[in-house]
Amino acid sequence: MSVPAVQKAAIVQSTGAKLQIHDNFPVKQASELAPGECLVKLVCTGVCHTDLHAAKGDWPIEAKTPLIGGHEGVGHIVAIGAHTQDSPVQLGDRVGIKWLAYSCLDCEYCRQGLEQVCPKGKYSGFTVDGTFSQYVVSWVSHVTPIPENLDSFEAASILCAGITVYRAIKYSKAKIGDWIALPGAGGGLGHLAVQYAAAMGLRVVAIDTGAEKRDLALKLGAEKWVDFRESKDLVADIKAATGGAGPNVAVVTATNSAAYEQAIDYLRPGGTLMMVGLPGQGKLAADIFFTVIKAINILGSYVGNRQDAREALEIAARGKVKCYYAVKPIGALEETYEGLEKGTVVGRIVLDMQQ
Amino acid sequence: MSVPAVQKAAIVQSTGAKLQIHDNFPVKQASELAPGECLVKLVCTGVCHTDLHAAKGDWPIEAKTPLIGGHEGVGHIVAIGAHTQDSPVQLGDRVGIKWLAYSCLDCEYCRQGLEQVCPKGKYSGFTVDGTFSQYVVSWVSHVTPIPENLDSFEAASILCAGITVYRAIKYSKAKIGDWIALPGAGGGLGHLAVQYAAAMGLRVVAIDTGAEKRDLALKLGAEKWVDFRESKDLVADIKAATGGAGPNVAVVTATNSAAYEQAIDYLRPGGTLMMVGLPGQGKLAADIFFTVIKAINILGSYVGNRQDAREALEIAARGKVKCYYAVKPIGALEETYEGLEKGTVVGRIVLDMQQ
Amino acid sequence: MSVPAVQKAAIVQSTGAKLQIHDNFPVKQASELAPGECLVKLVCTGVCHTDLHAAKGDWPIEAKTPLIGGHEGVGHIVAIGAHTQDSPVQLGDRVGIKWLAYSCLDCEYCRQGLEQVCPKGKYSGFTVDGTFSQYVVSWVSHVTPIPENLDSFEAASILCAGITVYRAIKYSKAKIGDWIALPGAGGGLGHLAVQYAAAMGLRVVAIDTGAEKRDLALKLGAEKWVDFRESKDLVADIKAATGGAGPNVAVVTATNSAAYEQAIDYLRPGGTLMMVGLPGQGKLAADIFFTVIKAINILGSYVGNRQDAREALEIAARGKVKCYYAVKPIGALEETYEGLEKGTVVGRIVLDMQQ
Amino acid sequence: MSVPAVQKAAIVQSTGAKLQIHDNFPVKQASELAPGECLVKLVCTGVCHTDLHAAKGDWPIEAKTPLIGGHEGVGHIVAIGAHTQDSPVQLGDRVGIKWLAYSCLDCEYCRQGLEQVCPKGKYSGFTVDGTFSQYVVSWVSHVTPIPENLDSFEAASILCAGITVYRAIKYSKAKIGDWIALPGAGGGLGHLAVQYAAAMGLRVVAIDTGAEKRDLALKLGAEKWVDFRESKDLVADIKAATGGAGPNVAVVTATNSAAYEQAIDYLRPGGTLMMVGLPGQGKLAADIFFTVIKAINILGSYVGNRQDAREALEIAARGKVKCYYAVKPIGALEETYEGLEKGTVVGRIVLDMQQ
Repeated sequence: MSVPAVQKAAIVQSTGAKLQIHDNFPVKQASELAPGECLVKLVCTGVCHTDLHAAKGDWPIEAKTPLIGGHEGVGHIVAIGAHTQDSPVQLGDRVGIKWLAYSCLDCEYCRQGLEQVCPKGKYSGFTVDGTFSQYVVSWVSHVTPIPENLDSFEAASILCAGITVYRAIKYSKAKIGDWIALPGAGGGLGHLAVQYAAAMGLRVVAIDTGAEKRDLALKLGAEKWVDFRESKDLVADIKAATGGAGPNVAVVTATNSAAYEQAIDYLRPGGTLMMVGLPGQGKLAADIFFTVIKAINILGSYVGNRQDAREALEIAARGKVKCYYAVKPIGALEETYEGLEKGTVVGRIVLDMQQ
Repeated sequence: MSVPAVQKAAIVQSTGAKLQIHDNFPVKQASELAPGECLVKLVCTGVCHTDLHAAKGDWPIEAKTPLIGGHEGVGHIVAIGAHTQDSPVQLGDRVGIKWLAYSCLDCEYCRQGLEQVCPKGKYSGFTVDGTFSQYVVSWVSHVTPIPENLDSFEAASILCAGITVYRAIKYSKAKIGDWIALPGAGGGLGHLAVQYAAAMGLRVVAIDTGAEKRDLALKLGAEKWVDFRESKDLVADIKAATGGAGPNVAVVTATNSAAYEQAIDYLRPGGTLMMVGLPGQGKLAADIFFTVIKAINILGSYVGNRQDAREALEIAARGKVKCYYAVKPIGALEETYEGLEKGTVVGRIVLDMQQ
Repeated sequence: MSVPAVQKAAIVQSTGAKLQIHDNFPVKQASELAPGECLVKLVCTGVCHTDLHAAKGDWPIEAKTPLIGGHEGVGHIVAIGAHTQDSPVQLGDRVGIKWLAYSCLDCEYCRQGLEQVCPKGKYSGFTVDGTFSQYVVSWVSHVTPIPENLDSFEAASILCAGITVYRAIKYSKAKIGDWIALPGAGGGLGHLAVQYAAAMGLRVVAIDTGAEKRDLALKLGAEKWVDFRESKDLVADIKAATGGAGPNVAVVTATNSAAYEQAIDYLRPGGTLMMVGLPGQGKLAADIFFTVIKAINILGSYVGNRQDAREALEIAARGKVKCYYAVKPIGALEETYEGLEKGTVVGRIVLDMQQ
Repeated sequence: MSVPAVQKAAIVQSTGAKLQIHDNFPVKQASELAPGECLVKLVCTGVCHTDLHAAKGDWPIEAKTPLIGGHEGVGHIVAIGAHTQDSPVQLGDRVGIKWLAYSCLDCEYCRQGLEQVCPKGKYSGFTVDGTFSQYVVSWVSHVTPIPENLDSFEAASILCAGITVYRAIKYSKAKIGDWIALPGAGGGLGHLAVQYAAAMGLRVVAIDTGAEKRDLALKLGAEKWVDFRESKDLVADIKAATGGAGPNVAVVTATNSAAYEQAIDYLRPGGTLMMVGLPGQGKLAADIFFTVIKAINILGSYVGNRQDAREALEIAARGKVKCYYAVKPIGALEETYEGLEKGTVVGRIVLDMQQ
């Protein structure tokens, strides 16, 4: 397959610098790929709040610079490095590029399915260049085949937002009939979480604000709604929504400590708090006394492994989960960042990379 | 069996009041017992830091007053309430009285083995009178038979300290070869934890201070020792003790936030922090970002259920776990409280209730 | 509440004897109840294949005689034994009577939630008289409150058939997206299993025969259908239905060995076979070699505990599971037995006990 | 490192043919290795009953021919295929070669840690040539680094026998204080199982015959001994050894059906039977009725994955498990096969490959 010499790419030159769109950024050619690497021509890519953290440098760990961000890409493999052994994917395959671009598959974490914490891990749009360019180098062992009957634009946001919430619900051990609290239920991660939870037979208490988000959450399968702006006692209202005892599980995607503290309060004894949000700063602030005497489980849940990814996509491919997103050109990336910062983005933004 | 009309008892009249030893406190007679209740004539009782919290009233939940504290009692059943059905214990049986004096065995928590959080739970020496008297009323469904070959004084501290650390280790899912960090390894709970962990094939990093505690911990099966007073970088030293990656599990019995924060830092990715200590005040203070990207599990572990109790005692009865304790008369309770407050008590104190 | 002196009851005088309907069988009066016992006035009761085994005596364990069978009863509590302590149910409550009529709640099995194997267990319609009489004595600790919005006739079959298949699916650890094979999908247990599985997001391969059962299974949520009479290679067809690798889980309710052998063959490596059926005779006949190298799990699943029962009923009460049943008078019990023997009963039979 | 052109190798030319020792069998040279392959110069190799099955062809799946058997090899890496990417091992490393020589690390089984059933799996001494030659080709992703302080001859038998029993005990979920029955406790797999079990705090009932095996089992940590030749009622004696209720777990390495049937009988309700033995023919023959009403778990356990291997070796390296073996030259392989067939081999045989 022919690969052009240059491409469009969105680049952050140094931490905190303004995003620049280049039209003539060089494309790595097939002959330059190492064994195990592949070149993917993108159809589209989602934009995630994490991209904003990377660009701004407000996390306690630092991104490479200059940086091409992005980690929700869908495209086709147009080259595979020479001498690549046993590639599970082939030229022409449609694949996804996730936050976890590479892990060694050999260390004690990888061997036990916790690939996300591999000491040799590479992260798309953070420690290696990501999907805000038309061609991206990735690894045959970690690109994720996209199920045939799933649209590329649909798939994009599943690759990070979807996997993340699916994995959190899965590892919470919630089972049919359990109540699950989803703060931010109308947001990018939240509206996917509502659907995954409902598809498993969980009973969803959606927590967010405004009629639009309420209608969306209820339509997607939430059983109860609590508007955090209108509620005078959020903890009491969430407990009441579940019949008094409180939810069995809460998946907290928020990046403020308050959401975590509240969860300890409203969770049922023996309940499980899944921590998903990644604020640059912030302490969990759970009260030790009550966490212990309520026998609460608090589990840090960090994206998902290759298996979680396949499952999250497969569920979407079966039509159980639909992403609400708007398509924009790559040139709209900066305004998207601004929108994310202000909180005015509804659903997810997916960039069309073929223009 | 004949039951006297009066007994010795240590009573706190009102929250924060000075402890008083009564010689003529009335004994509840067999005819006064409700169905399901039993009267236990105590041989001995341990003293626990929790008793001090109860007496002082510095927890966010309140004890009854006047209060007879104590929840590590061993004695013999001398009466069972009329019309008690299907009692699993009989007159003359030697039994233990634990923190959890009663639970309904019917609610959703009890049905799933989380009896400790039963909404109808009664707590010895806190919401019902405890073991700092020569006779104590308890419930046939919850007193714990003491294995034949376990000495009563040995058994006393297992009933709270032992069960608590055993349950924490058990629920951490640590398996043979895993590293476990035990801050306070030379203390009342810690020295029992070292032994339970070693008996399961875990590799123990004992953390405490002073040569006496070091020698004790190493003798009881710890593989590595870190003196928190001598260490210049506790987190680094604990990681180094385990070969670099950090422990798989930490059981934190301390009541200060710092011990929890450190654990998040030194735990291996995917590691598990068992929260056991019950400070009146205090936030977990775990950094959200690192808890998530290290995929850390934080589990509140609250004493143990009836099954955990049996297992903890059985292991001690097989000689795998020995408690280090000093025997004192009931009159020494106040000075014991003072010692606990100042941190000068070595091992556990067990009161001889037959004097 | 007034309790008559006599009632209708269906009695098997001795093992293998013909069933007799008595009109004047004595009712145990409130004053005769032991502490912990209650008297339930039945609305209705399901009929289960197990009742037939009990009557015929073709199991390797023996039922009491004379015997009143039945263990799927729904009715109201009309008396509670004097001196019953802490009853979780009250006079007038609508409750269900299950196979497991009583367990000690104290032994190692009960303490760990495996109440079904309690050595002191009592079984309705087997070791104690069951629900084929208008009034039945049971135990306050084990009767199961029926959710308000669940009809009594709907609830009856959930109490054994529903709990059994729900528990089997639950303990199989099947998760959303997993394939589950359900041989006998159109039968009494099978059609409930299809619904429980679908409600959890599982993908169901229904296996049975005939257009009526096919239509029912597909309507209730099965994704694939295999007719075992029409199939020329059942194992191959079941694997093909799941895309080639075979189901992750099979719940085998059949009482013939062949169904078990086939399951080992068609299950995916690492798959789980839930054994539910209880033939009087019969060996599992799993090939050792392939069970090992396919790493198959085979789990004996025996009715369910009190918690499983609550969950199975709650799911039905939310409308996720509907039982297909026909209502008959108690006098129709014998012809029902004949129908069960011949395999001509469609769905479940529920007896109206108020006539 | 220099690699000779020819080597000693033990070859079975066709299924069932007599074993032949070649002195001039060609060695695959470094330049012939594919990416991902490595050449290992062996120090020693264990001999396993499976090798005999492979040579005789009495399993339902067929080995390659001509065949070099063997899958318990320890040696040093002397070459790595050109263009191998990210090799976790380096030239000179001491590594082990296991039954599972290769798996794709990408399929649904590999992704979930069940590498043993990978459809692309290669098996040493079965589908690819194994360790009965002085040089063996293997895969960098699957050779297992040997811990520094573990002798090569000690390590050899851990690589199959050790991993297999360790994995079986680990996946049985047995916990400290549980009783485990080990039929064949004095044999090659059994004597290692006794030690792994004891190191985890399990209580071992060793089952075998003869004073020598009895003494060995008790010395290695077994708590009880049952001689199956002297016992008049094996099931009753095993139950009695555990205090009446029976073992919680049995690891059955035998290849006859009777051992499986007995285990269903003597296991405690809720107990777990780990199936490990691989007879060419043979049905499990578990009684369906009792497997269900005792709620027995039967788990096929097939060698172990890369993580299980590391753990099993690490435990041995810490001195918790010692293999009893005799060292022989490669020329003694045929007589070893004869001994295995007759059952006269005590412990394990390890071939010295450096002679």
